[in-house]
Amino acid sequence: MSTSQSATATVQANIPVSLRLSRPAINAQRLNDTLQLSCQWGSTPDGGMNRLALNDDDARVRRWYIEECQKVGCQVTVDAMGNIFAVRPGKNQGPPIAMGSHLDTQPTGGRYDGILGCLAALEVLRACHEAGYLTNHPLAAIVWTNEEGARFIPSMLGSAVWAGVKSLEFGQSRVDEGGVSVREELERHSFLGVRASSHQEIPLKAHFELHIEQGPILDTAAHPVAVVTGVQAFRWFEIKLQGRGSHAGTTPMHLRHNPLTAFCEMALSADQLAIQFGGLATIGRVGSLAAQSTNCILDDIVFHLDIRHHDDDKMDQLEAAVRVSFAQIAEKTLGVRLASWEALTASKGVQFDPLAVDCVRNACKAYPKQEIISGAGHDSVNTSKHCPTAMIFIRCKDGISHHPSEYSTREDIAVGGSVLLDAVCRYDSTV
Amino acid sequence: MSTSQSATATVQANIPVSLRLSRPAINAQRLNDTLQLSCQWGSTPDGGMNRLALNDDDARVRRWYIEECQKVGCQVTVDAMGNIFAVRPGKNQGPPIAMGSHLDTQPTGGRYDGILGCLAALEVLRACHEAGYLTNHPLAAIVWTNEEGARFIPSMLGSAVWAGVKSLEFGQSRVDEGGVSVREELERHSFLGVRASSHQEIPLKAHFELHIEQGPILDTAAHPVAVVTGVQAFRWFEIKLQGRGSHAGTTPMHLRHNPLTAFCEMALSADQLAIQFGGLATIGRVGSLAAQSTNCILDDIVFHLDIRHHDDDKMDQLEAAVRVSFAQIAEKTLGVRLASWEALTASKGVQFDPLAVDCVRNACKAYPKQEIISGAGHDSVNTSKHCPTAMIFIRCKDGISHHPSEYSTREDIAVGGSVLLDAVCRYDSTV
Repeated sequence: MSTSQSATATVQANIPVSLRLSRPAINAQRLNDTLQLSCQWGSTPDGGMNRLALNDDDARVRRWYIEECQKVGCQVTVDAMGNIFAVRPGKNQGPPIAMGSHLDTQPTGGRYDGILGCLAALEVLRACHEAGYLTNHPLAAIVWTNEEGARFIPSMLGSAVWAGVKSLEFGQSRVDEGGVSVREELERHSFLGVRASSHQEIPLKAHFELHIEQGPILDTAAHPVAVVTGVQAFRWFEIKLQGRGSHAGTTPMHLRHNPLTAFCEMALSADQLAIQFGGLATIGRVGSLAAQSTNCILDDIVFHLDIRHHDDDKMDQLEAAVRVSFAQIAEKTLGVRLASWEALTASKGVQFDPLAVDCVRNACKAYPKQEIISGAGHDSVNTSKHCPTAMIFIRCKDGISHHPSEYSTREDIAVGGSVLLDAVCRYDSTV
Repeated sequence: MSTSQSATATVQANIPVSLRLSRPAINAQRLNDTLQLSCQWGSTPDGGMNRLALNDDDARVRRWYIEECQKVGCQVTVDAMGNIFAVRPGKNQGPPIAMGSHLDTQPTGGRYDGILGCLAALEVLRACHEAGYLTNHPLAAIVWTNEEGARFIPSMLGSAVWAGVKSLEFGQSRVDEGGVSVREELERHSFLGVRASSHQEIPLKAHFELHIEQGPILDTAAHPVAVVTGVQAFRWFEIKLQGRGSHAGTTPMHLRHNPLTAFCEMALSADQLAIQFGGLATIGRVGSLAAQSTNCILDDIVFHLDIRHHDDDKMDQLEAAVRVSFAQIAEKTLGVRLASWEALTASKGVQFDPLAVDCVRNACKAYPKQEIISGAGHDSVNTSKHCPTAMIFIRCKDGISHHPSEYSTREDIAVGGSVLLDAVCRYDSTV
């Protein structure tokens, strides 16, 4: 703990009173150095992160984060899902303008997904503190529990309970592959807060989230930052095709009941329909229930279809078109039938609050215009149900995420932090 | 063992001397009952078989088979690969006319694949014995070791060593998934014969193999039996496509490096080219090296391609056309490359010996004419390198094989047994 203590003390000592700004400013070096420092708990030799929700490393970084927030004058509350609310008082009382994200990672994740948002929030608080700058509304840095859904399914769990999308009982009873529950881990780390995890108990004025894009749009355009106007709706399905396994050598082509033929046509059709409707379609899992063998025509194929659209009506149309197409393909493929079609999960589209988005938009004026609808889910999806919410994306190399090679430059990270600070201050001045 | 002993004793006692035929005849009931009896070692509740090569059940059925052959006057030799040669003397000395197949099965196999050929051979020997019929040449029933290639890769292993296609060292050193070798199992069961596994050491005059078709041609035509004139060439490849895994929600369709897109086009192309060239193409295994996830575009695809043709030149053309097509598809798919193309195994086409085939043809004269080139490999492929070889197919329900529901009627089994006996006797009279 000594490194962080001495770093903060040095910062405070080094700023001459005469140079105290009336408007705070991000310290790019401090933001980047602290982000890398915070990764010491859970870093892997390949440059990535393995910090599953509520494991020992997650507990360590949370305790460190709380201390750093307290050093800049925050009052810290932990709710019954372990969500951390570090509140810096403003001129007035009332719900805080929050900057939230997550500190848990994928098992082979990167150093920026979620971590960026929390560390930028800390930097905003430090910048305000060192400038002696008091916002009108209180400010809050939030760490949401189990956003990734890697250790405990589903993802975005802590914010879902806060938002009332899931019950506390549901959230605390989720278990990992070893049967350990969220509640047990919260208890083990003394993070089982007494405050109810509830938007009514812990209301927010607004929620701003800085995040890496996790996609290739900014990188391809060579732009550093984007205004995020909403989040796509998505639906996951598990589809099974039943054919008839038979010998590869003895079954003439015209007598085969080959589910792979139907599958391939379905996969290509899904791609085309997604493009046609302006959405996305992905098959990320494909396999068989029956054992596969080189010299056997497959008996069955099971696959997962993930479709997305920013517009709920268009999403309905895309799903309907895919269902019609798949039914036609099965119909025309000899001896193959659509055995089952199960809806696994779904999320409606989200349009972020126009005012909050506008604050981000204005904060991005210095940069090339770029507006994105997020293709991935974030805690902001849940907060948007109860308070104005907006997000900021920064570029990540090759659009790679959920991978050790996930990377954003120090410069882009600084841009993101500045935009976050600017957007939050604008919102604070406006409402 | 008591059941089989009493069955044979009953048979001998029940045939009046006056009814002893000068020409032997298959006893349909005995053939079928004995086949079902032999399945007790390895049968599964669903009506199928799980008798992997050289496991305890395989050892039991082998010992039983040897005893049954000895009861009808055979001298039994086991070679260094555990191949069993049960030889019934003829009027003259010299290499025997053999009837061979295999007793090992797939892990979820049927009761007829291989088993039919061995039990029909036993029935031919019993029929000759009970008729007091001496052939000119010795007759032999052969059980070839590890034909299926399910436990030890590759298939047709015992006959391959006998034929000199593989070395004894290679054959004995094959290991199963648990690291246990062929040699260890042979030793464990006392089936490690002292006789060299060699066509020079153990020459055959001819090899006739009765087998289920394992395909739908006879069933579709409603014919019980076919003359098999040869075996298709086949080639197996393992092909890897490298794309780039990325988030299903954040990667626009036009920026994806999706190996699944290329794979689907390749699979459909392989089907079309097979039809165009009059051959067969099958993808029986498909998966990924990188972990699959519902919301991730696949990073890579690995699949197995099995192509077949009865004509070696056409086979070369088919392979060349597939290679060109796959290269073109990879070329036109953004960010996807053909990372590797490995030849796993290959077998040239086989034309069976005209005289042996003609004996089968004549033995089938009573039935609707049907001639087939086998799409599957059999031990007969290996024996054909060193002695005249022919095969007989009988119909199996829906063409299903390698599956518990594999089925041939008692009547068709009797037809097969009669044709085998007739073909062998004709050949014996001719050469």
